[in-house]
Amino acid sequence: MADDSQIRIGVFSCTNIVRKVSRAINLAPNATVSAIASISNSIDETKSFAASNNFPPTAKIHGSYESLIEDPDVDAVYFPIPASLHVEWAIRAARNGKHILLDKPVALNVYEFDQIVEACEANGIQFMDGTQWIHNPRTAKIKEFLTDPVSFGQLKSVQSCFSFAANENFLKNDIRVKPGLDGLGALGDAGWYTVQASLLANSFRLPKTVTALPGHVLNDAGIVLSCGALLDWEEGVTATIYCSFLANVTMELTAIGTKGTLRVHDFVIPFQETEASFTTSTISLSEHKIVNEIPQEACMVIEFARLVGEIKNRGAKPDGFWLNFSRKTQVIVDAVKESIDNNLEPILVSGR
Amino acid sequence: MADDSQIRIGVFSCTNIVRKVSRAINLAPNATVSAIASISNSIDETKSFAASNNFPPTAKIHGSYESLIEDPDVDAVYFPIPASLHVEWAIRAARNGKHILLDKPVALNVYEFDQIVEACEANGIQFMDGTQWIHNPRTAKIKEFLTDPVSFGQLKSVQSCFSFAANENFLKNDIRVKPGLDGLGALGDAGWYTVQASLLANSFRLPKTVTALPGHVLNDAGIVLSCGALLDWEEGVTATIYCSFLANVTMELTAIGTKGTLRVHDFVIPFQETEASFTTSTISLSEHKIVNEIPQEACMVIEFARLVGEIKNRGAKPDGFWLNFSRKTQVIVDAVKESIDNNLEPILVSGR
Repeated sequence: MADDSQIRIGVFSCTNIVRKVSRAINLAPNATVSAIASISNSIDETKSFAASNNFPPTAKIHGSYESLIEDPDVDAVYFPIPASLHVEWAIRAARNGKHILLDKPVALNVYEFDQIVEACEANGIQFMDGTQWIHNPRTAKIKEFLTDPVSFGQLKSVQSCFSFAANENFLKNDIRVKPGLDGLGALGDAGWYTVQASLLANSFRLPKTVTALPGHVLNDAGIVLSCGALLDWEEGVTATIYCSFLANVTMELTAIGTKGTLRVHDFVIPFQETEASFTTSTISLSEHKIVNEIPQEACMVIEFARLVGEIKNRGAKPDGFWLNFSRKTQVIVDAVKESIDNNLEPILVSGR
Repeated sequence: MADDSQIRIGVFSCTNIVRKVSRAINLAPNATVSAIASISNSIDETKSFAASNNFPPTAKIHGSYESLIEDPDVDAVYFPIPASLHVEWAIRAARNGKHILLDKPVALNVYEFDQIVEACEANGIQFMDGTQWIHNPRTAKIKEFLTDPVSFGQLKSVQSCFSFAANENFLKNDIRVKPGLDGLGALGDAGWYTVQASLLANSFRLPKTVTALPGHVLNDAGIVLSCGALLDWEEGVTATIYCSFLANVTMELTAIGTKGTLRVHDFVIPFQETEASFTTSTISLSEHKIVNEIPQEACMVIEFARLVGEIKNRGAKPDGFWLNFSRKTQVIVDAVKESIDNNLEPILVSGR
C-alpha cells in the first residue's frame, strides 16, 4: 500500500523484467508501484498484468508512455525498453521531473549518454542504472575485502566473465542482437556487468586504456555476440573481461591482489536468492574429488619411466606426444614474448 | 631399492626441487635414483644430501655433470638447472643416450628448443618436461569433462592464471629474473602452466594467433615479472592467460564450453597432495555467506528510493556516484567497441 513516505514508481511495459522489478518494488518498504504504461497491451491486459503482479489497487493504468511520464502521481520511472529508445524517453522523463531507473546498456554510446546526463542535470534528476548485483550486500563485503590493505593488498589483476548460451530464437529475434535496438549486443548486456566488476575492483577508477582482444564474434548485422577486452590501469594493474551469448552460463569474478585473492562464481545473479557467497585467498573446493594415492610428481615419473622402459626393453620409439606438447608450449611462450616485443601485434604461430 | 625393471635416473644438484622429485622417484615403483651430481657441493655434502633424501645406498655421487651423463648406470637424467644451460646439457645427455626429464621453461626460445629436438631425435631419446600437474589423475578427469560433447559441448573460452607474490630476495636474485639464466621470467615459469592449461582445454591444438596484452611488467633487465596474453583459435575460441611474480598465489583455470563450465582453483599444485577437486557447471561455493533478507533487486530499489526521497523531501542534490559509475561503464563499453573497430589498437579513455 502506498503511503506518503514511499517513492511512487511508474513502470513501462508488461514484460518479465517488469514482473521481477515490480516484485522488488513491492518488497521495498520505501517504494511502491504507482503506475504502469503499456503500448503493446490493451488497458484490460495491463490491468490484469498489474493485478497478477500484486501492484497496489491504486496503481494507474496508462495506454501510453507519454501519459505515464506526465502523471503527477509518479515520482520516478523504470523503463526496460530497447537501448535505442533510452535517450528519448530518459530526456522526456527528466523534463517531466521524473527520476530515472534505467536498464543497461544505458545508451548506445557516450554521445547519447551525455544527452541523458544533461537532461538529468538540468532537471535535478536522480539516475541509476538497473544493474542489480552491485546492490547485493555481498558486493559491499566484496568491496571491503578488495580495499583491505592487509588481506588483499594492492590490486593486480581482475578477470571477469559473464556468458550464457542464448537459444536460436534469442540469436535471431532478441532486441540484444538487433542493430536498431540494443546495438551493443553481448558487450552492452553481459559485458556491462563485467566492466562494472572491473571498476568495482579498482575503486571505480577509469583505466588508462581499453583494448579489445582478438576472437570476438559478430552476427551478420555486425552485433557483438562474444568478445573480450583488456582494461589497463598502468603499473601492471589490468582487468580482462569476457562476455558472450554463445557460451554456457558463467559468472566468474576473480580479483588478485598482492596479498589476497577473491573468487566469486555467481557475481551477476547469485545461485541463491537470499544468500550469496564468495571465497578469499586459497580456500579449496570439494567437488569431484579424485583420489591419487601417490602425488602427481610421482605419477609423472611413472609415466616417464614407463616410456623409457618401452624404448629400453622393447625397442619402442619415443612417444612424441610430450615433446610436441612441450614444443607447442614453447612456441606459444615465444609468441607471447614476440608479441610483447612487437607492439602487441598478433603473432602467427600456425606452422611454427 | 633398485631392480632391473626400474629406470635409473641421475639428478643434477642438491636443491629443493631435487628433494621433491627424488622423493617422487622413490615413490615410483618403476624408477630409482641411481646417481646425483653437484658442482656446488662437496662430495661429502652431496652424499649427505642423498642420504637425507632416502636415495638408495647404491646411488653414485658425481662431482661433475659430465661424469654423471657418462655414467653407464644412468638411464635418464633430471636436471633442474637454469634454462640457459638446458640446450647444452640436453644435447650432451642425449648424445650419451640419456633420456631427459627437463624443467620448464625447456629452452629460451624455439631455436634452442629445436636443437634439443634434433639431439633427441638423432639419439632416440625420450623427452618430457617437468610439469607435474598434467600428470595428476585429476587432469585426466578434467580432460574427460572438456571433451564430453554432452556435458561441456564445444570450447569457447579458457581463462587461466598462475601468480605468486615473490619476495624481495627472489625478485633480486632468483634465476627466474635474470637475463642470463631463466630469461623468460614469469612467462617461462608461471606462464608455462597457463599455456599448457590452455592447450589442454583445446585438445592440444596450436592457436592461430597469440597476442600479448597491455599491462605487462618488466624488471630493469627487461625480464617479464607479470604479463597476460590471448590465444586465438578463430571461430570465437580464445584463451586468456595471466602470469605474475607480483600477485598473491592464484592458480585458477576456468573453461567455458557451449554447455558446461569447468573451474579449478589449484590446477598447478593442488591444495591437498593426495586429493584434488574441480567443479563443473554452476555448482556454488559456501564460504563467506552473507545473508540478505530481501533479494538484491529490492536492495537496489531501496537505495534508489532513498536517494530520490532525499531530493524530494529534503531538497538534497542527486548523488552523482551512480551516474558517474554508469557513465564510466559506458565509456569503457564504447572504448571496447572502438578498439574492435580500430584493429585492436589501445583506446585512450582517460579524460573522456
